[in-house]
Amino acid sequence: MAQQRCRSVLITGCSRGIGLGLARGLAAASPAPDWVIATCRCPEKAQVEQEGPCRDPPRPVPGYVVCENSIKKVVKEVEEILGDKGLNCLINNAGINVVASLEEVTAETMLTIYETNTVAQLMVTKAFLPLLRKAAQLSTGMGCHRAAIINMSSLAASMQLVQANEMFLKVYPYRIAKTALNMITRCLAADLKEDRILCISLHPGWIQTDMGGDMVTVSLVWGILSVLANLSEKDNGSFLDRQGGTLPW
Amino acid sequence: MAQQRCRSVLITGCSRGIGLGLARGLAAASPAPDWVIATCRCPEKAQVEQEGPCRDPPRPVPGYVVCENSIKKVVKEVEEILGDKGLNCLINNAGINVVASLEEVTAETMLTIYETNTVAQLMVTKAFLPLLRKAAQLSTGMGCHRAAIINMSSLAASMQLVQANEMFLKVYPYRIAKTALNMITRCLAADLKEDRILCISLHPGWIQTDMGGDMVTVSLVWGILSVLANLSEKDNGSFLDRQGGTLPW
Repeated sequence: MAQQRCRSVLITGCSRGIGLGLARGLAAASPAPDWVIATCRCPEKAQVEQEGPCRDPPRPVPGYVVCENSIKKVVKEVEEILGDKGLNCLINNAGINVVASLEEVTAETMLTIYETNTVAQLMVTKAFLPLLRKAAQLSTGMGCHRAAIINMSSLAASMQLVQANEMFLKVYPYRIAKTALNMITRCLAADLKEDRILCISLHPGWIQTDMGGDMVTVSLVWGILSVLANLSEKDNGSFLDRQGGTLPW
Repeated sequence: MAQQRCRSVLITGCSRGIGLGLARGLAAASPAPDWVIATCRCPEKAQVEQEGPCRDPPRPVPGYVVCENSIKKVVKEVEEILGDKGLNCLINNAGINVVASLEEVTAETMLTIYETNTVAQLMVTKAFLPLLRKAAQLSTGMGCHRAAIINMSSLAASMQLVQANEMFLKVYPYRIAKTALNMITRCLAADLKEDRILCISLHPGWIQTDMGGDMVTVSLVWGILSVLANLSEKDNGSFLDRQGGTLPW
């Protein structure tokens, strides 16, 4: 039996970097989803194409992940777009970073980065759960064709690999928040397995520029899309890299 | 060669529960540290003895772990007590909890619990680093006799054991914040190894009552104290239970 198609994808943080790369890559894929919805804080500044709806180019929707009202508004708009088929795949990609070593890190920075890189992912996911559950009821198996939550994590969040990756000691708030995000992945995977909604953490790979910049390579995007296309029940609650390999917690 | 003695211990969150139990246990130990300093938000309400300084009973010092000014004040007072010998062992025990399932969890609760159970531990540790470094310069080896940071974590923070401990899905903010605290342990262990300051996460064990209540058993306290007394370089950056066993991340 041919693999079922993912009808709809929503990606947060698409003004540039990996989010933008994934939105464009998905819209250009074959088969492409019917809907690639790309949210970003300021669509007027974003490089994502100002046209829509999908297929190609992705549809931009303004949405600020740390604002409850903004999330509600996006959910309502997305619900109107997708109708009664629900949402197949939510990619929690929005995130920020600051350079902060042990000497530099402050309580304020720790809280800001946690709010944007961890708490927002959980709140966005909660807001889209009704749409994900709707999609999950219309299909079988587990994966992006049915209902999936992809949390963009980082190799820097691997506790086991801290010694091997001491360079990331310069980003205390970021790596600690991404570790917490990995725990959210684990909790969601356990909590939502009865709904047959899959959840993973994904380390997308290293980018040369600030949070991705414009230097996202084609190979990186296709690597990620290939991993997403092949997700199944065995991957639920796992921490993967863009080759599909498992990373340690 | 007989094991060197831990001269000074500071424990946060000692008004009751495990903090209070540890403070009393340490003061009654043989050999006891010269100084057992027990901080708590409201010493006037605390069950910790209102006398001091140590040995027996522990010396209570008012200190609120999420308040920068309060931390500074405690550090200054502790510096005056301990003089030029520095602080041997900091036990980051203060913490709070709320019951919050996936349906119940809010951004506000996530941030509050993170601030108290994760960010505060990092900020308190940073504030005491000069005293810990001072103590580390006066001894050899690694352990509580020299300089150590003990982060009170929880079995609920083990990502690998989420499936086995699904009951803890009812405490999203707590377990996610404790997972982040484990990452802080890993980062501190890597960052401070040159200073020969040891850092571990410790799962103290389950208590029947709210955050410890008054039901802390003697066997639990002695288990923890035994683990602390036997820490050495091989334990740096590890996640231990009160039998000294290693927990998975």
